[in-house]
Amino acid sequence: MSDEYGSKRTGVSVTQATLDIVGIGNAIVDVIAQSDDAFLASHALSKGAMQLVDAETAELIYGEMGPGLEVSGGSAANTLAGMAALGMKCGFIGQVCDDQLGAVFAHDIRALGIHYATPASNGGVPTARCLILVTPDAQRTMNTFLGASQFLPASALDPQLIASARVLYLEGYLWDPEEPRKAMRSAIDMARNAGREVAFTLSDNFCIARHRDDFMALIDNGKIDILFANEGEIKSLNETDNFEAAVAATAGKVGTLIVTRSEKGAIAIQKGMRYEVAAEPVPQVVDTTGAGDLFAAGFLAGHLSGQTVEESLSMGAVAAAEVISHYGARPEADLKQLMAKRLGK
Amino acid sequence: MSDEYGSKRTGVSVTQATLDIVGIGNAIVDVIAQSDDAFLASHALSKGAMQLVDAETAELIYGEMGPGLEVSGGSAANTLAGMAALGMKCGFIGQVCDDQLGAVFAHDIRALGIHYATPASNGGVPTARCLILVTPDAQRTMNTFLGASQFLPASALDPQLIASARVLYLEGYLWDPEEPRKAMRSAIDMARNAGREVAFTLSDNFCIARHRDDFMALIDNGKIDILFANEGEIKSLNETDNFEAAVAATAGKVGTLIVTRSEKGAIAIQKGMRYEVAAEPVPQVVDTTGAGDLFAAGFLAGHLSGQTVEESLSMGAVAAAEVISHYGARPEADLKQLMAKRLGK
Repeated sequence: MSDEYGSKRTGVSVTQATLDIVGIGNAIVDVIAQSDDAFLASHALSKGAMQLVDAETAELIYGEMGPGLEVSGGSAANTLAGMAALGMKCGFIGQVCDDQLGAVFAHDIRALGIHYATPASNGGVPTARCLILVTPDAQRTMNTFLGASQFLPASALDPQLIASARVLYLEGYLWDPEEPRKAMRSAIDMARNAGREVAFTLSDNFCIARHRDDFMALIDNGKIDILFANEGEIKSLNETDNFEAAVAATAGKVGTLIVTRSEKGAIAIQKGMRYEVAAEPVPQVVDTTGAGDLFAAGFLAGHLSGQTVEESLSMGAVAAAEVISHYGARPEADLKQLMAKRLGK
Repeated sequence: MSDEYGSKRTGVSVTQATLDIVGIGNAIVDVIAQSDDAFLASHALSKGAMQLVDAETAELIYGEMGPGLEVSGGSAANTLAGMAALGMKCGFIGQVCDDQLGAVFAHDIRALGIHYATPASNGGVPTARCLILVTPDAQRTMNTFLGASQFLPASALDPQLIASARVLYLEGYLWDPEEPRKAMRSAIDMARNAGREVAFTLSDNFCIARHRDDFMALIDNGKIDILFANEGEIKSLNETDNFEAAVAATAGKVGTLIVTRSEKGAIAIQKGMRYEVAAEPVPQVVDTTGAGDLFAAGFLAGHLSGQTVEESLSMGAVAAAEVISHYGARPEADLKQLMAKRLGK
């Protein structure tokens, strides 16, 4: 087994993989409300981005925003929701508080058949929530109060669970809070020692700005097998406005690089080969929350079920198209049926 | 002022009305999940109906149902949400607990500009929730845990608030729990003494079966000016399978009777005249939760803004069509814009 750039590992592991994927992420309930540009401007919110807010700011924004719709979220958890819907065996690690929203999160993820056994905290810090303002252009602007999620202890990582999954999936957002960041590093080592693949999503431009050195080190040290980014993120990571230069700079350092490009579709670079998929058409884009998460779900489900890169990209595009056609970042339609109908698989 | 059947009251009141409507209802957060007929059958749930469940049964059903989407609900509260969106000045009375779902309910109703000042209880009984199972035919089957809502004390009724609104709106569901039932009777007297109109919705067949005598007495004693029912409810109220006979039996006892008939539209009977409206077409019926509530919203908004009965029925049809085209019982589209587009008003 080698940790060099883009190296193909043997996949030999001491235990047989019983799960397809285990994801570690923030355990968040989304609170989605319609908004307008004036509201974003008056609260100095950067459209399309995610900002971390403290309890007080969350209360302030919540008090002034419109009526909400609560639905379980969290980037990695959304990806697992999509993968579970596609028949993958999934596990999730992330911390909620022992409160009503924590119960909602735990119910929803277990109802999808996802293994979830992280104990709820009861330290008085409530379950994380993300106040998502959706503007008429379907863009989402996120204000995350990390709550109990930011105190995910390294002890919550179950080495056996991580070793039991073919892929470890991590969200960049977890680099923001200190304890999960440490836990992530241990998790990566656990997975690699067990001969598993590590997939990582860069999450957000501002998140990259906060943790560029860490993300670069992970990539440079060959810790990431599959990297997901969008156009803005891959450019931000490489501190360039030149998309192709950004892609070229990163592609050689990871096994597979996937870059989503909104209405322009997505590309994948693997072993020097470039693959492209067009965006799947949708009658109406309602809310882009979860688009990247569900693209990753479709792609990884394809990857893990032995589909080609092109087919996996198509599955990503179909899953992403479903989630942007309604409010909320988790699929409402039967994704399996949708794949059968759209892709004949 | 007279309390005889269908009598027109003078409308003279001691105070100037400052609100268009005040509604009293269960303060509920809906938990909406996709389901299938097999799930309903295996839990002995009657499709399309509302059943009351205790905490234990609610936990049991919740534990087995799919991932949910939480959104503020409650029949009367949904009606007010629609009316507020149509520019009506509204007030709501209903009790939540001082917990996370209670905070969600209170936020959402206030975010709509609805006056809501009922203190949250803190007696350990949590905020009411309604587990709504939506089958692929868009029918909803509701399992309501009344929680804090069922302990709405008569002291929560603000006589000045009730006297200040042109219409008092009540849901039949409130007859189930004892304390709100008593509170309702006081509220009706308060409204009538202030020369206000009383509007009432029959809510549900099973609810009528439990309280037929009480509902009949209210109607027979001329306490109801505007009565909302659907086809099943008006038949159940009159214990007949003959729709026309049921309508005829009740129409003369209330100022205005409105009966909604799903895809067949709706009728209104007022002073012996019968008015009809066709159902507003929708591209896809997703979830019928809130259809009756929003029909009432559109009708009452028309009534209170001086529209004719026909126009008010049309407004009801447009509002109901919006709410059945997505999950959740409160409007997502801009109802004012929708009315302008569909009805030129």
